[in-house]
Amino acid sequence: MCNQEATAMVFQEIEKPFNSQTVKFPVLKKGEVLIQITYATICTSDLHTYYGRRKSHAPSVLGHEVIGIVVDIAQGGVRDYVGEQLQLNDLVTWSVYAHDHDGKMAQKGFPQKSEDLFKYGHEKVNGEDILSGGFATHCHLRAGTDIFRIPEGISHKEATPLNCTHATIAGAIRLAGELIHKNVLVIGAGMLGISACAMSKYAGADQVFSMDINPDRVENTLHFGSDLGLDAQLSLEEIRQLTQPLGGIDVLIDTSGSAEAMEKGLSILNIGGISIWVGAVYTQRNLSISAEYIVRNLLSIKGLHNYMPEDLAYAIQFIRETNKIYPFESLVSKDYPLAQLDEAFDSANSEEKYRVGIKPI
Amino acid sequence: MCNQEATAMVFQEIEKPFNSQTVKFPVLKKGEVLIQITYATICTSDLHTYYGRRKSHAPSVLGHEVIGIVVDIAQGGVRDYVGEQLQLNDLVTWSVYAHDHDGKMAQKGFPQKSEDLFKYGHEKVNGEDILSGGFATHCHLRAGTDIFRIPEGISHKEATPLNCTHATIAGAIRLAGELIHKNVLVIGAGMLGISACAMSKYAGADQVFSMDINPDRVENTLHFGSDLGLDAQLSLEEIRQLTQPLGGIDVLIDTSGSAEAMEKGLSILNIGGISIWVGAVYTQRNLSISAEYIVRNLLSIKGLHNYMPEDLAYAIQFIRETNKIYPFESLVSKDYPLAQLDEAFDSANSEEKYRVGIKPI
Repeated sequence: MCNQEATAMVFQEIEKPFNSQTVKFPVLKKGEVLIQITYATICTSDLHTYYGRRKSHAPSVLGHEVIGIVVDIAQGGVRDYVGEQLQLNDLVTWSVYAHDHDGKMAQKGFPQKSEDLFKYGHEKVNGEDILSGGFATHCHLRAGTDIFRIPEGISHKEATPLNCTHATIAGAIRLAGELIHKNVLVIGAGMLGISACAMSKYAGADQVFSMDINPDRVENTLHFGSDLGLDAQLSLEEIRQLTQPLGGIDVLIDTSGSAEAMEKGLSILNIGGISIWVGAVYTQRNLSISAEYIVRNLLSIKGLHNYMPEDLAYAIQFIRETNKIYPFESLVSKDYPLAQLDEAFDSANSEEKYRVGIKPI
Repeated sequence: MCNQEATAMVFQEIEKPFNSQTVKFPVLKKGEVLIQITYATICTSDLHTYYGRRKSHAPSVLGHEVIGIVVDIAQGGVRDYVGEQLQLNDLVTWSVYAHDHDGKMAQKGFPQKSEDLFKYGHEKVNGEDILSGGFATHCHLRAGTDIFRIPEGISHKEATPLNCTHATIAGAIRLAGELIHKNVLVIGAGMLGISACAMSKYAGADQVFSMDINPDRVENTLHFGSDLGLDAQLSLEEIRQLTQPLGGIDVLIDTSGSAEAMEKGLSILNIGGISIWVGAVYTQRNLSISAEYIVRNLLSIKGLHNYMPEDLAYAIQFIRETNKIYPFESLVSKDYPLAQLDEAFDSANSEEKYRVGIKPI
């Protein structure tokens, strides 16, 4: 296969056209896999990078919500997450990062913060080594990537957001602990929020409430497990009046990253409530929090960034078991060929879309 | 026993002498027990109440760190926490509150916030019903109190702080989760802080660091499991220089309640660190917290107030297994007879003592 070629769309500068670059297939080292990408989606954090709303490496190949087919495997073979040998033509997804499974941070239970983390769709391009992101024909998986076969019955549009959106929410659900007999409030009704509504219900939550400033988005969460949509403009008292008769709020998952929303959320939690913060990945004002209130109400706050490989396993199980119940496919509104990536980014950024897809082949 | 009498020292008003009041022994209802108090200690929260530093019911009988001997048991018998029938003359401690074990909050896992909570040493006196606190000859235990036999080999001075100080810290240790291979920083080196140092070590923590503004108190924690004492005036950089070579700080237990200390604590936690807030039970300025920092560093914050009965069981086991290692008895500097309660409060408040004892018989 050594004379074959791959193409990647290289991000050079904020809001500048992507630069199509072609390279030979890499010679795989131990533990590596070459993937032919079949589908990718533009995640909100790709937009943050492209439009300069956060600091990122450049040049780089963006795209990390991505799936593909195994087209080359390093000598000696590579095992998937469950320990089975990968085969050519397997359709797979993979953890958004490669890491040293024997490293100190992994041993401490925080693989997503490993010292040597290699994060797909986020790495600075190094010479010819450009196959590190999803907006390309191929992706070169490093040793230490947790690779998962995608079960039959899951469409490309359903599978692609698995390794970012759904796996991140699976991490939040893990932090929430037991959800049976508990009510969940999801703040923010974008892709993460929709996943959080559906996965909370899947994990056994009793009532699921959703909240956003956008009424159409709130409305749409009702198709994904939310029992009650709430306008983010409601006062604390109004929220209490609506939620208390149903048992109040035991767990909150904030996907909005809004300081106001997170502060408000702490004030409406039941005693012993848990607030899981997922969305606050950009700079904003500090929150003002009463420690006495946290203490007397036995509240917990848990921050989540990236996720653990086991979360991706849970996310796959979740999609496999719920994609007949919830219309996940509807969340990817349109797809573009790889060569039209500029147009795809414009479209993803300018309209109220959850996801725009990229279909390289 | 119905013609016998008990005496309680009733708290009437802030900084006013306690009022000695004598009542007949109560006729016990189902599930109740009468205790002859053998020892009580003045907890810092008793001082907060007596000196008007927090709002409390009055008149009331203060004192909740207390032990005693069973002198009367309701018809039908009463079982202790492990399900054994209590016997006359058993030396016992008990949960600081009585609660409905079948109630909604107990079922949700928050017995300490039950709807019908009866909290010893905190209840407003109701007519003749004054035997609700520790500064008395007797205490009238309500149905729903978790009662624990005190094992042999534990002295009165060691046993009395069990049902407040040590049980509260046991709750913090429960919230911390696994401590093996982890380092703990204890902020505040009073009675709670000392217990937190010793119990962290007992629970398997690797390094235990202690911090306070009072150097003598920091020094004393070194006799209770702390490996390294830190001056609270140190800068974040200085704390990092001292703790990073030892592995940094994975778990923080704040017993100080200081906003500055809790903010500082969040800034020096390792990735994935947990900050447990115990001390913030009084009004103060809000904390200023960066949600992005919490998220990117996978930090958790957990508030603890009161404790669960199982925490008291753990605290008893802890004292039984460590009272030959750590000089807990030295923490109760002096004791007074019940009639000299005014003097005992003056002494407890005016000097740098951990605990002053009250010996009613």
